[in-house]
Amino acid sequence: MRNIVAALTLLCSAYGTAAVDIKRIEPANWWVGMAHPQVEVMLYGENIASFTPQLQYPGVHISAVNRTDNPNYLFVELTISQTAVAGAVPITLLNKATEVASFNYPLLARRQHSAQRQGFNPSDVIYLVTPDRFVNANPDNDSVPEMLESANRSNDSGRHGGDIAGMQRALPYLSTLGITAVWPTPLTENNQPAYSYHGYSATDFYRVDPRFGSNEQFRDFVAEANRQGIKVIQDIIVNHIGSNHWWMKDLPASDWLNFPKGDKQGNFVPTNHNRSTIQDPYAAESDRTLFTDGWFVDTMPDLNQRQPQLATYLIQNSIWWVEFAGLSGIREDTYSYADKAFLSEWGRRIMQEYPNFNIVGEEWSPNPLIVSYWQAGKQNKDGYVSYTPSMLDFPIYDALLKSLAEPESWNSGWIRLYEMLSNDHVYANPFNLVIFEGNHDTARLFSVLGEDEDLFRMALGYLFTMRGIPQLFYGTELAMTSPAQRDDGKVRADFPGGWAGDKVNAFTGQGLSALQQRTQQWVSTLLNWRKTATAIHNGKLLHYAPDNGTYTYFRYNAEHTVMVVMNKQAEAATLDLARFSQVLPTGKTATEVLSGKRLTLDKHLSVPARGILILDIR
Amino acid sequence: MRNIVAALTLLCSAYGTAAVDIKRIEPANWWVGMAHPQVEVMLYGENIASFTPQLQYPGVHISAVNRTDNPNYLFVELTISQTAVAGAVPITLLNKATEVASFNYPLLARRQHSAQRQGFNPSDVIYLVTPDRFVNANPDNDSVPEMLESANRSNDSGRHGGDIAGMQRALPYLSTLGITAVWPTPLTENNQPAYSYHGYSATDFYRVDPRFGSNEQFRDFVAEANRQGIKVIQDIIVNHIGSNHWWMKDLPASDWLNFPKGDKQGNFVPTNHNRSTIQDPYAAESDRTLFTDGWFVDTMPDLNQRQPQLATYLIQNSIWWVEFAGLSGIREDTYSYADKAFLSEWGRRIMQEYPNFNIVGEEWSPNPLIVSYWQAGKQNKDGYVSYTPSMLDFPIYDALLKSLAEPESWNSGWIRLYEMLSNDHVYANPFNLVIFEGNHDTARLFSVLGEDEDLFRMALGYLFTMRGIPQLFYGTELAMTSPAQRDDGKVRADFPGGWAGDKVNAFTGQGLSALQQRTQQWVSTLLNWRKTATAIHNGKLLHYAPDNGTYTYFRYNAEHTVMVVMNKQAEAATLDLARFSQVLPTGKTATEVLSGKRLTLDKHLSVPARGILILDIR
Repeated sequence: MRNIVAALTLLCSAYGTAAVDIKRIEPANWWVGMAHPQVEVMLYGENIASFTPQLQYPGVHISAVNRTDNPNYLFVELTISQTAVAGAVPITLLNKATEVASFNYPLLARRQHSAQRQGFNPSDVIYLVTPDRFVNANPDNDSVPEMLESANRSNDSGRHGGDIAGMQRALPYLSTLGITAVWPTPLTENNQPAYSYHGYSATDFYRVDPRFGSNEQFRDFVAEANRQGIKVIQDIIVNHIGSNHWWMKDLPASDWLNFPKGDKQGNFVPTNHNRSTIQDPYAAESDRTLFTDGWFVDTMPDLNQRQPQLATYLIQNSIWWVEFAGLSGIREDTYSYADKAFLSEWGRRIMQEYPNFNIVGEEWSPNPLIVSYWQAGKQNKDGYVSYTPSMLDFPIYDALLKSLAEPESWNSGWIRLYEMLSNDHVYANPFNLVIFEGNHDTARLFSVLGEDEDLFRMALGYLFTMRGIPQLFYGTELAMTSPAQRDDGKVRADFPGGWAGDKVNAFTGQGLSALQQRTQQWVSTLLNWRKTATAIHNGKLLHYAPDNGTYTYFRYNAEHTVMVVMNKQAEAATLDLARFSQVLPTGKTATEVLSGKRLTLDKHLSVPARGILILDIR
Repeated sequence: MRNIVAALTLLCSAYGTAAVDIKRIEPANWWVGMAHPQVEVMLYGENIASFTPQLQYPGVHISAVNRTDNPNYLFVELTISQTAVAGAVPITLLNKATEVASFNYPLLARRQHSAQRQGFNPSDVIYLVTPDRFVNANPDNDSVPEMLESANRSNDSGRHGGDIAGMQRALPYLSTLGITAVWPTPLTENNQPAYSYHGYSATDFYRVDPRFGSNEQFRDFVAEANRQGIKVIQDIIVNHIGSNHWWMKDLPASDWLNFPKGDKQGNFVPTNHNRSTIQDPYAAESDRTLFTDGWFVDTMPDLNQRQPQLATYLIQNSIWWVEFAGLSGIREDTYSYADKAFLSEWGRRIMQEYPNFNIVGEEWSPNPLIVSYWQAGKQNKDGYVSYTPSMLDFPIYDALLKSLAEPESWNSGWIRLYEMLSNDHVYANPFNLVIFEGNHDTARLFSVLGEDEDLFRMALGYLFTMRGIPQLFYGTELAMTSPAQRDDGKVRADFPGGWAGDKVNAFTGQGLSALQQRTQQWVSTLLNWRKTATAIHNGKLLHYAPDNGTYTYFRYNAEHTVMVVMNKQAEAATLDLARFSQVLPTGKTATEVLSGKRLTLDKHLSVPARGILILDIR
């Protein structure tokens, strides 16, 4: 895409002293046949706002021209009729009657079935990757002259060299593991002087960071992943940018950012993180504003999505990546920190283009009342309408950890999970939530659970069979560890085998500990079984109140039942199966998924001490 | 009322061998001019179901006669037209054509404005009393021959002799303290062999326990309380009875109780207390049934409110007490443990008779999603409709204790209370919730807070100024203590001065510690001020995110503003008042409520270390 822009801008050079140099055209292309007929093209060039755009192209016309208080930006809205055909649209800029610039704007044809693409869904298992730390297949791009930060693998907070080529090389491994969707943390350019590897400080919304690869390489990776049965989810941030974003040298509008110059005294204004203010009927306006408009850190300028050109820019950017790269989903970072009216429109526009798509938002709260507010279909008391189909299920994550860490009693242990799940009536669609065992911002699950393999298996077994879409963090299949408290650099450790010369290699098995080998095998067995377990993809859920340290639930549809029992006690438990008569089918065969053993479900069921039993009943 | 029943049953004796002895007629009377035109009178007598009732009275007719599988009960539904006048309705029972019994059924005239009575509301402060432990004004009724348990003041779990006469004697004290409503724990007959003082094991729904006094004495107490500006709230239990209830010797129907004979093996079936099953979309039917149908303890048989005659009996009983005694409210015990369809109808019937009444339900859960389900006006996902206007606010109680106990951090301390309150959007009417500092089932607040007077004052000051209707437990104004963990006998200790010869006397002040004296004075000052503080009765609420150990909120209406600041830090705090410009009126005078000092609200406000500042601004 860089090449297209470069080629186009060349066209602008033949006009002598009166000519304007168009430095940026964003988006660099659009498509014919989109549901929404408009695209607003942002042109950047000195004093470009003083000129008038013009075009002649069948089915395409300029429907609006918008200007901000910065004369170096011009926003040209094209309306593209459903009859318009793909091609180069010649656009000229006039100074009164004099042409001062001209370029061809590409309108591309869409891929077949682009609009009907299926987003990730409960039949999928998502694998979250920090690309810089996963696999480094191309050492040539570890450091790149045009980017400020070079690779330094000895620095926990530095770049280690992982890349898109690495993710591509790992696809067969992931496929064998049973993974059906990959969510890489953001791949867009983060040309920050330091701490740039995580990707959440974009400096160019339309460009893959060259240390990861190119736009085209990303597109090819997605296509190859799809061929291997793996969907790709892009991590997108509309809340903030990196302080080195190219906009920061010449803001498109003075209201493009929140608190562009800090407070009245020029001090940095951080967010208060008080997400409860969004629904709180008693919250002070100033607290609510500070939540959305305050900055995360001083290297992450906060975007003002109420600015109409910025709002459109962000919406188009998201759609552009879906269409360009062939995505199956979006993970939207720091969801509630953005303007909520904007978020509604952003989701509406994406889902209008891709009705079967999926978007999962990050709202880091253990309170289902807060998380559910943002899911599409929720009838909110304040009338707020969201179009985001999924949310990350932080409440279940929180309850799961407590359930496993706490001793069993009437108000601790499994009852936490049992009761949290009972709140699902507050969600419009709990079956479309993404449930997870950890992510790049949490300590490693195995460490959180005190490296207790039994509890670790219960946690994973739960996620793989519970309602929702499970998400693993890379390396969990190897029981990777970290400090028990959050430590980003160590949580995002290099995946073993991702670097040439690694002594431990998860891809070949070389050097893995016995624990790692059996965990990898255990996860693979469960996930590959899950691919065929329709009751987990589309079945109902029924659970029984925790009893004597055990917690039992069922997933079931017309032809298939899955029974899951977790037992936290140090002794084997014997369950009276009569308790489950509401759901337990009679006259069918049960297979213990992990051992493959056949069982007869008669009067009693024995559940191993500190174990999880998963029965496939058909 | 005993007398009425006795007189009526006398009438039934003159019919020789064919006559039936009517042992019970319940309710013993009804009223003309009620909104609901029917009353179903339960007659109890040997083989009474084989007879046919008949009556002649203008505007009254028998609209239904219901029988159960117990021939000793007959349910006669009278329909009373709006034109019927008060009087004795002669009812005869016929064996074919032969009269076997006859009695006059009293239809009384209602008090003026009975239907329009005002229930307790946010202008009130409720004082919860365990009558047996409050004041013993009549030692003659401490033990009563017809009741199984005698007084024994040395037994924590025994009866101590407090009574209705005692509550009546305390009215001037309560009035001076600033109390405007009294909620005594249940006063109905609890003729259990032991542990009968708490009142939650009724053995006769229509009779005040003679150790407390008589029905008429209770009615007179309510009238006197009203004269002194104090409303009376009756504690009613529809979920269960005492095992010595007279029904237990001859159950009105075999399905009158849940698990009347235990499980299939005859074992006692306790409730699982899993209240989450009520809304849980995934709960097993058996767990849900066990929650409502299981018994609390084996001395509390669980009522099956699905039985139609029982449902009507319970509804009529509640209305009878409101009308008979002149109540201003009902507190409904163990709310969610009863059948929920019944609860809806129970509430509807009461509120139909008394549209301005108030009922507060006990749902002991820290989860606002669970508590809010039961409040009238909530749009529940499952379509459930409640008519109960208020609920006890256990979520705020839980958050308040955590807020005070925990150190301040981004996720502990005040933020608990701030965030819990933000959930109020889930309630139909949070301003009508009853907020409380403890009750007969919790440890004493002062002890829970480690006898920290500063925190204790913050807790009380919060309750007296927050949205909702505050409820104190008797003796809190004296900083009464208990073990920090629940210990019913010690929590419900005798109120000092309630017994002749008490060395410490809260009524006279004699023997109170300095701490007790200043606490009593402090509470009295605040509550008497609260009587005039309209912004607390009907004002809006605005709160600010906790900041540096302080938590600030405002109550305000058009003419009056109350500002409350609590400071948990060990140093005085200085607040920049500019932060509060959204709500802080300008050009008005502020009075510090507790000291009476006048303040100018200029740029800054100083809040004492570990203190609460309450400013009245008009």
